[in-house]
Amino acid sequence: MTAVQDPSRNGVATGTMFATLDLIKTQPELARFQFRVANRWVAGAHNRSTIKGFYAAGGEDTTRTGEFHLDAGEPAILLGTDTGPNPAEYLLHALAACLTTSIVYVAAARKVDLTSVESRLTGDMDVRGALGVDDEPRNGFERIGVSFRVAGDAPEAKLREVVERARRRSAVYDMVTNGVPVAIEVATG
Amino acid sequence: MTAVQDPSRNGVATGTMFATLDLIKTQPELARFQFRVANRWVAGAHNRSTIKGFYAAGGEDTTRTGEFHLDAGEPAILLGTDTGPNPAEYLLHALAACLTTSIVYVAAARKVDLTSVESRLTGDMDVRGALGVDDEPRNGFERIGVSFRVAGDAPEAKLREVVERARRRSAVYDMVTNGVPVAIEVATG
Repeated sequence: MTAVQDPSRNGVATGTMFATLDLIKTQPELARFQFRVANRWVAGAHNRSTIKGFYAAGGEDTTRTGEFHLDAGEPAILLGTDTGPNPAEYLLHALAACLTTSIVYVAAARKVDLTSVESRLTGDMDVRGALGVDDEPRNGFERIGVSFRVAGDAPEAKLREVVERARRRSAVYDMVTNGVPVAIEVATG
Repeated sequence: MTAVQDPSRNGVATGTMFATLDLIKTQPELARFQFRVANRWVAGAHNRSTIKGFYAAGGEDTTRTGEFHLDAGEPAILLGTDTGPNPAEYLLHALAACLTTSIVYVAAARKVDLTSVESRLTGDMDVRGALGVDDEPRNGFERIGVSFRVAGDAPEAKLREVVERARRRSAVYDMVTNGVPVAIEVATG
């Protein structure tokens, strides 16, 4: 298969995908990426992130022309005014998005044409932890549930293999299930 | 201090905050929350989450009147068309937003008037893991760096105490550093 014979599947440029994978195999230093977010408090539970630049494949990206802005908030019961999804909901979205894109890319690589990928995620939390009322419950979700419905031009077993491979390669699934070291620096004034 | 004397600090209704904390102390069953996200694949790296309903304080929320929609994507080098921040960037935003809101709430509880809270986050990744090129690098970020600048009407030591308390109570910081069990169900067709 070449890019000319099969330029796209599931909206993924498979020729470019395989060329990229081959390039990274021969030049692993190109695999170093850094993503970044800048956040600023607005008022109360409202804060806003700006996202644009990142480092990839040996240099600073120049292809992303616009900034993304994300507004976070809290609902009334958590003392906000719904200026955006809350941080825990953003984490669920990050997980849903990463698993979904991984499914779509794995399916493209395995010549599976998908027709739909839908998911519903739930996160259960005892807010006594985050509110500082009790030290026993953890601050975050005790568990996350993900329910996928995947349809495409392949037998059920093949579709399940695609989801399983995507789970094993998802960046956010890895981070959310295994954790990541986080270093915090603080300047004042 | 009562809500009448001190109804708001940093945009947080402190009277309501303390009343909520007292209520949850006496009725811990009200602390059970569930947040939810529904996601749907659009094309390629583009998928969209819809966020509205959640369970809180003994019942289904009725205060949030509108839906939030979040679009995810990937930049060109990761085979997308920048239809939104990518999933790993959303995870950084979730972390920034949660730490920031925690700082603002802790400061309000401790009678610290903040003037600004800004942060820059970085996540370093060797994409050979997520791309399935090599089993050695992990799929997600190897490390996350967070740099805060906090200003307000308090001595530096007090501001640093606020940040440290916020870190120890942040829901997303807990999840990102310690991990969460994730259960995935799959239906096909």
